[in-house]
Amino acid sequence: MRRIGATIFTCALFSLMAVAQPIASAQSAQSDKDAINKVLHDQEMAWNKGDIDDFMRGYKDSPDTTFIGKTIAHGYQPILQRYKTAYANLDAMGKLSFSELDVRMLGPDHAVVIGKYHLIRNVAGGGDASGVYSLILEREPEGWRIIVDHTTAN
Amino acid sequence: MRRIGATIFTCALFSLMAVAQPIASAQSAQSDKDAINKVLHDQEMAWNKGDIDDFMRGYKDSPDTTFIGKTIAHGYQPILQRYKTAYANLDAMGKLSFSELDVRMLGPDHAVVIGKYHLIRNVAGGGDASGVYSLILEREPEGWRIIVDHTTAN
Repeated sequence: MRRIGATIFTCALFSLMAVAQPIASAQSAQSDKDAINKVLHDQEMAWNKGDIDDFMRGYKDSPDTTFIGKTIAHGYQPILQRYKTAYANLDAMGKLSFSELDVRMLGPDHAVVIGKYHLIRNVAGGGDASGVYSLILEREPEGWRIIVDHTTAN
Repeated sequence: MRRIGATIFTCALFSLMAVAQPIASAQSAQSDKDAINKVLHDQEMAWNKGDIDDFMRGYKDSPDTTFIGKTIAHGYQPILQRYKTAYANLDAMGKLSFSELDVRMLGPDHAVVIGKYHLIRNVAGGGDASGVYSLILEREPEGWRIIVDHTTAN
């Protein structure tokens, strides 16, 4: 009897694990998506305070981090410099917002975000601008960070 | 003595596994990169035979497959239709080549490819064209397939 009891207990335990594991996985995917959305929301806020250094904290600080626009730039520092040159003052930075964010997990440690950006700017700043982007993010010890940014202006 | 022998054997086995596993992993990353390069090479060949249906076999046949150009298109069929409309004849298709491919694994089942494309075309076809792209590929039962294509024309 004791052996049958142990067998039933083991079966129940494995059944529970089989159900619990996908639930835990779905919950963790949702919390990852929430964390990724927060990285992008923090970027909008940093930009709209005129703080490009803080905005750059959304990117991984690595020489492999890649920005694709019309051309391809490699490395955190060159990408930072590119932003500082292209958006040299508050008028050029304008007010940034993201919309229609589509966050998809690519396994446990990577994700892609497809979205649209909008810059509201005065004439001195170059006028309004918008476009689409796809970002690849990677789970780092410090949180989710962008490793590839591909942005296309409309 | 027999127990010590067994212990030594077990230690040796685990040591071997610890060394062999990263080697196996690096080998499998390389064979994945080779397989991904082949998917793109097959796409070039299909395009240059004027066969858009065969070219599309590089994409995952899914409603989630996404093409980002100036706008965002979802789904295998709409993306196929977009290609057939934009490249309606052999002159418009021209001769396609890819260059400077940078393939990076994103965990075991995903990868990103950053590269450049070049279309050699006559005047009737619209003249030469080129640009940059980033592709996200996913390991499917049938092989590596593109799930997100973001292409920017120069």
